[in-house]
Amino acid sequence: MSYSKHLCPRSQRALEMLGKKWMGVILLALQDGPLRFSEVSERVAVISDRMLSERLKELESEGIVARHVLGNSPMRVEYELTGKGQDLTPVMTAIRDWSHRWIPLESPETPA
Amino acid sequence: MSYSKHLCPRSQRALEMLGKKWMGVILLALQDGPLRFSEVSERVAVISDRMLSERLKELESEGIVARHVLGNSPMRVEYELTGKGQDLTPVMTAIRDWSHRWIPLESPETPA
Repeated sequence: MSYSKHLCPRSQRALEMLGKKWMGVILLALQDGPLRFSEVSERVAVISDRMLSERLKELESEGIVARHVLGNSPMRVEYELTGKGQDLTPVMTAIRDWSHRWIPLESPETPA
Repeated sequence: MSYSKHLCPRSQRALEMLGKKWMGVILLALQDGPLRFSEVSERVAVISDRMLSERLKELESEGIVARHVLGNSPMRVEYELTGKGQDLTPVMTAIRDWSHRWIPLESPETPA
């Protein structure tokens, strides 16, 4: 018996993508407009450049972030949310609202 | 320089929890009311009992799902969304709406 209320694979895929560590932070950093790699890095703060680079590539391959090469001497690269990326705002807002209602500020570390 | 728009640790934690494989499916299965383990298993379909049991324990420890023991001969256990769990509905709805707008139905497998 199939059950019609299965979470569809598209929602599952979105959830897994957004749930990867730092994805939310990166998406939020880009919400105000295009940023250079070093600017994203500065805003996201604790993430390593290697991890940031990996996440930006994932977001680019998902069509959520666009990478623009703006000059070549010196080469300047900017990252910008696409329409698909900008349209994640209601999702991020819903998650922020829920977590602010239900997750205590000084919550203890969760066990691994 | 600290940057005030960091995703707060609470949203990060919510994103990581929801992004774990099968979490969304399990939450959706429970949205219509309490279910026994076997009923959750039936609705979530492809997940192994071991993984389902692990996820339900995580949701219980997060206060999102409550586990009720209803009898002991035979023992009957039900799982039910708490208020915190029911309040995730807007998040799940926002994710579903976004993914339906932007992720194609027949999307190719993403590389590992």
